[in-house]
Amino acid sequence: MAANLTILAADFATLQKNADQLFLLIMGCMVFLMQSGFAFLEAGSVRSKNTTNILIKNMLDIFITGLCYWMFGYAFAFGQVGNPFIGHSDFFAGSLRHSPDPAFWFFQFVFCATATTIVSGAMAERTEFVCYLVYCVVIGGFMYPVVTHWAWSDVGWLANGPGGIVYKDFAGSGVVHVVGGTTALVGAKILGPRIGRFKDGQPVQIPGHTVPLVALGAFILFFGFLAFNGGSQASISGAGDGQIVSIAMVNTLVSGAAGGLVAMMVKRSGLLGGVNWSLLTSINGALSGMVAICAAADSAYSWGAVVIGVVAGVVYCAWSKLVIKLGVDDPLDAVAVHLGAGLWGVLAAPILARDVGLITADKEYALRLFGWNLLGVLVIMVWCAVVSALMFGTLKCLGILRVPPEIELRGLDIPKHGEPAYPTESYGHGWTIMPPDFSPDPYGPDGKPQPQPVYITRSNGQS
Amino acid sequence: MAANLTILAADFATLQKNADQLFLLIMGCMVFLMQSGFAFLEAGSVRSKNTTNILIKNMLDIFITGLCYWMFGYAFAFGQVGNPFIGHSDFFAGSLRHSPDPAFWFFQFVFCATATTIVSGAMAERTEFVCYLVYCVVIGGFMYPVVTHWAWSDVGWLANGPGGIVYKDFAGSGVVHVVGGTTALVGAKILGPRIGRFKDGQPVQIPGHTVPLVALGAFILFFGFLAFNGGSQASISGAGDGQIVSIAMVNTLVSGAAGGLVAMMVKRSGLLGGVNWSLLTSINGALSGMVAICAAADSAYSWGAVVIGVVAGVVYCAWSKLVIKLGVDDPLDAVAVHLGAGLWGVLAAPILARDVGLITADKEYALRLFGWNLLGVLVIMVWCAVVSALMFGTLKCLGILRVPPEIELRGLDIPKHGEPAYPTESYGHGWTIMPPDFSPDPYGPDGKPQPQPVYITRSNGQS
Amino acid sequence: MAANLTILAADFATLQKNADQLFLLIMGCMVFLMQSGFAFLEAGSVRSKNTTNILIKNMLDIFITGLCYWMFGYAFAFGQVGNPFIGHSDFFAGSLRHSPDPAFWFFQFVFCATATTIVSGAMAERTEFVCYLVYCVVIGGFMYPVVTHWAWSDVGWLANGPGGIVYKDFAGSGVVHVVGGTTALVGAKILGPRIGRFKDGQPVQIPGHTVPLVALGAFILFFGFLAFNGGSQASISGAGDGQIVSIAMVNTLVSGAAGGLVAMMVKRSGLLGGVNWSLLTSINGALSGMVAICAAADSAYSWGAVVIGVVAGVVYCAWSKLVIKLGVDDPLDAVAVHLGAGLWGVLAAPILARDVGLITADKEYALRLFGWNLLGVLVIMVWCAVVSALMFGTLKCLGILRVPPEIELRGLDIPKHGEPAYPTESYGHGWTIMPPDFSPDPYGPDGKPQPQPVYITRSNGQS
Repeated sequence: MAANLTILAADFATLQKNADQLFLLIMGCMVFLMQSGFAFLEAGSVRSKNTTNILIKNMLDIFITGLCYWMFGYAFAFGQVGNPFIGHSDFFAGSLRHSPDPAFWFFQFVFCATATTIVSGAMAERTEFVCYLVYCVVIGGFMYPVVTHWAWSDVGWLANGPGGIVYKDFAGSGVVHVVGGTTALVGAKILGPRIGRFKDGQPVQIPGHTVPLVALGAFILFFGFLAFNGGSQASISGAGDGQIVSIAMVNTLVSGAAGGLVAMMVKRSGLLGGVNWSLLTSINGALSGMVAICAAADSAYSWGAVVIGVVAGVVYCAWSKLVIKLGVDDPLDAVAVHLGAGLWGVLAAPILARDVGLITADKEYALRLFGWNLLGVLVIMVWCAVVSALMFGTLKCLGILRVPPEIELRGLDIPKHGEPAYPTESYGHGWTIMPPDFSPDPYGPDGKPQPQPVYITRSNGQS
Repeated sequence: MAANLTILAADFATLQKNADQLFLLIMGCMVFLMQSGFAFLEAGSVRSKNTTNILIKNMLDIFITGLCYWMFGYAFAFGQVGNPFIGHSDFFAGSLRHSPDPAFWFFQFVFCATATTIVSGAMAERTEFVCYLVYCVVIGGFMYPVVTHWAWSDVGWLANGPGGIVYKDFAGSGVVHVVGGTTALVGAKILGPRIGRFKDGQPVQIPGHTVPLVALGAFILFFGFLAFNGGSQASISGAGDGQIVSIAMVNTLVSGAAGGLVAMMVKRSGLLGGVNWSLLTSINGALSGMVAICAAADSAYSWGAVVIGVVAGVVYCAWSKLVIKLGVDDPLDAVAVHLGAGLWGVLAAPILARDVGLITADKEYALRLFGWNLLGVLVIMVWCAVVSALMFGTLKCLGILRVPPEIELRGLDIPKHGEPAYPTESYGHGWTIMPPDFSPDPYGPDGKPQPQPVYITRSNGQS
Repeated sequence: MAANLTILAADFATLQKNADQLFLLIMGCMVFLMQSGFAFLEAGSVRSKNTTNILIKNMLDIFITGLCYWMFGYAFAFGQVGNPFIGHSDFFAGSLRHSPDPAFWFFQFVFCATATTIVSGAMAERTEFVCYLVYCVVIGGFMYPVVTHWAWSDVGWLANGPGGIVYKDFAGSGVVHVVGGTTALVGAKILGPRIGRFKDGQPVQIPGHTVPLVALGAFILFFGFLAFNGGSQASISGAGDGQIVSIAMVNTLVSGAAGGLVAMMVKRSGLLGGVNWSLLTSINGALSGMVAICAAADSAYSWGAVVIGVVAGVVYCAWSKLVIKLGVDDPLDAVAVHLGAGLWGVLAAPILARDVGLITADKEYALRLFGWNLLGVLVIMVWCAVVSALMFGTLKCLGILRVPPEIELRGLDIPKHGEPAYPTESYGHGWTIMPPDFSPDPYGPDGKPQPQPVYITRSNGQS
């Protein structure tokens, strides 16, 4: 036990620092799990023949973004030496000198992986595998880090606006979700719709192959979003940190809940076609609420969070229709969720934030902030649109953007990956008795399993 | 670094508060994930035709309970102004004044959502969707909060018994699980069994459609239960907090392990019919052990936790048979797990708790506590039975309790939700070659995929 | 708020202790979740007819290891009274006196469960259920605890080498993964290959039945591995703890990423047969990177972690071929991942650790450490090989090692567990209209569902 004040103060400072790092790590791990959330949301939303393809894409996103963010992405975003537009030090982050806090690196990395992974959903079921590899490098290693430098580094131009104004985007409605959503829109547009998605200009429904996987992804994303928004406080040792993290999580919850319920009601009303209680619409509505609250998660009243969520649910539905109107095929509705609700979130913060929004006393700052946030998000959109148009355009010219139609029709899993998601030869319940000429080799001369007589019985199952 | 004692003490108090809030948030997030645990436990236990239905129900539970607990549930439970029976302040919790700690609110909310979600399993495969919406509001917004007010708020009558006696239910064997289990029993009884569940008075097995989803749900629930019981300490900064949280988690583990093994052996012995090593019985046995240890998770010796788990495994099996005997159709055995084991847990605490149980010196207090716990849990049961009977009875009279038989037979997913869990048109591995007259449109004039010749090949798979 | 230094110092010591315990618990819960990671990795990698079997095995691993580690495993590993080879106090850990820290117990337990569960993958689809029960007791209760006593207890011989040398294995490349991998190799060898796995000496691919479950398991394992390696610091209150935990997690990430990418490229190059972008190979490569970095997770530079991961990816591929060459049938490639990469990890630490490796100034210590680590891991392998050979050999002699061929061909789920993973009678989307003679009983006189006419309609799905 510490015996004097100096030692105690030093030990206390140690604990503060450790607590801050552990906080970032635990929140970071929860956000890391969102990679699997996106993976299963997407896997459930594609046809069975493209399941392995979308899963490996989501896994590679971790691998490639991880190495690129380590090599240069972090340097562009948070390198200690930099100008208002880009950082340029701390390459191979921390490898030799450990100047960046590795906990901070980890937390920023998982955000980067999130921004990158949004794109894959919109481009599912028809994109060349090599294209995934390329865009993970470009988005995760360069395009997204630059935006975070603008908004979240000490010297970024968005964080140091005229008259001391600071772009308000607590957890990244704009920095993460508009980035991902804009890139998804550009990518899906350049790529073109899946074969059969539009017929005579009318959209044809192509349902995903398994709803439970979609729901699994959604639950994991909800879980991760609590940490995504709560963890954005980035520190737990300072006065009020615990309170802000708590508020951010509660706001995430109620905004998501409101978004999910509203989207469900809009769908039920028939405005989107059909009059069903749609699980998939509810999920996307809830995600939209969570995306929209990002920017003001720390500083909206919980009633403000509910308002943001309600509007986000409507915004999602409107964008979903708009995207189809534009002839864009987005199998996940990623554009509507991330771009639509993200945009709304960036604009809602200057209205509903408790500290800097229009609901506070300082209306003049709030109005200027609205302008600055609007400008900021427009620049972000233009930046992402230009970079991604260049990238996807180049890939298209090189002929490595989209798989050939015969591969698309057969599905990508077998031709590209050699791994069907559900190999038929591995199914069957084994309800067989041994034939009279039983031999321990169930494979015929052709190396395939041989048919075997069926043995009628009952499962005495579950009790 | 803090330079003098006063500042250091203030900073230290800040860190204590932040640590307590973060503790509640992290534990709360883990408990939040239990929603998906219940969702998949239930989804795997129903037939494929009702999968989307049960998933959306579990998702709506978060949304509706979240908003209701925010609007009024918390006020009834922990509002600062209140009488021994109900609280009545802090509506729209924390929206304007943030008088409640938002971390505490969040942790209490996830418990509320747990109590509410238990019911859906027992009523699966035949309940009207609107009924779900209603009971989420009633249970999560009113019925459960009132019980927590009795037992866990400062002024509740159960927490302030005669002679200073305090109802002992650390993590809610009674407050959460008996509430959910009683409501499940009443709901399933009023609802009636699924078509075909009983034939000439004998139960007919209706197995769920996918064991892996059940197992997924179970693993997630095990994970969440550690936080459910550990987090109930509600604070990590005080002397002994870490020790109690640790003990609660270890007890949860060993009680669950014992319950799982015992239930598996009972099933294997043939007492429940069949002589199988049943995964599903083992899962429910383990959950029963974890439910039963809730009440004394902080204060049972680990051998006591094992005893509680062993008995819980037997109790579960007995209740499972009893429920069927009563002609109640509970597809998840939720009544046996939550009501059966929960009851046992409430009664076991006054026997096996290290601080207040019969194994301690003060036998007299322990005996009085046994009586008070018994009274408490009986009142809880009566309260839940009355409220839920009124609610489900009203819904039945209104004709919105149960779907019509033709819907039940077809399954709820398509008529109600328009979203079959596994749309057949999205399956197939794409093992096709292009026909001679290949065109990039695989859809026939009717807009359906056209049959395509099969291309024989082998998966070169997994390596 | 503390008013004087003595009280403040005492409160601070309390918070330090609580923080350390909470750290172990949270990391432990995340590692606990790895049980489900292994469960789904394995469930997806077997045929559908053996799915329930592998799931119950992974669940029993928790139950049995939990109780055995409580009863005697912990005593052998960390009992306060012991010699360099085995501990022998603190049986029924903490039940009466709570002398062990229950948080430490919990963290060590989840490691024990991990070591034990590795084996089941290699022995999948053909092992007698009773054999699982036995080896959980032996491995989790005795064989693994003894190894941890050697390496990680204060008095273990590996931790107290000649000249003050300390076996370097931070998170258990050797202590956990070589233990699991060696036992898996011995078990799979004694058990023999699955029927049909080799034909005329050539391996025949037997793909698992569902890739999404494999991916689910992999994502969960990645998540858990961060805590497996980060949590191994075992304390968060001391100077530098937060930094080391952070470094361990970052190293785990980049090593895994490198391993996954390298293994994918090796597979793509055709060296393993096939030229596919294999998800399953990528997963195993990433796991190998994470296994290999265990030993030096705290102390490798991140570039060193990348080097370790790159080599681990290659090592995995080589071992995968080697195992098949040896005629061993390992459905999960558990031997290649855990033994192959684990061995490499133990040998890489004395080379690449920042504090004690060859890259530091003290080459002489590093060389001696290399020898000591090599000796240590060889002794571990011999120990595990002998114990497991005795155990599996005995089980073989008793005829309870392997199921009879007729059971193996039918699959284990129904004969052994009575619970097919996907009961056919529970499938179908309910696309039926009522026949003219509709009756609410869809079951025929034989108690089986009756065929019903198909009602043509379209899903109006997802919106």
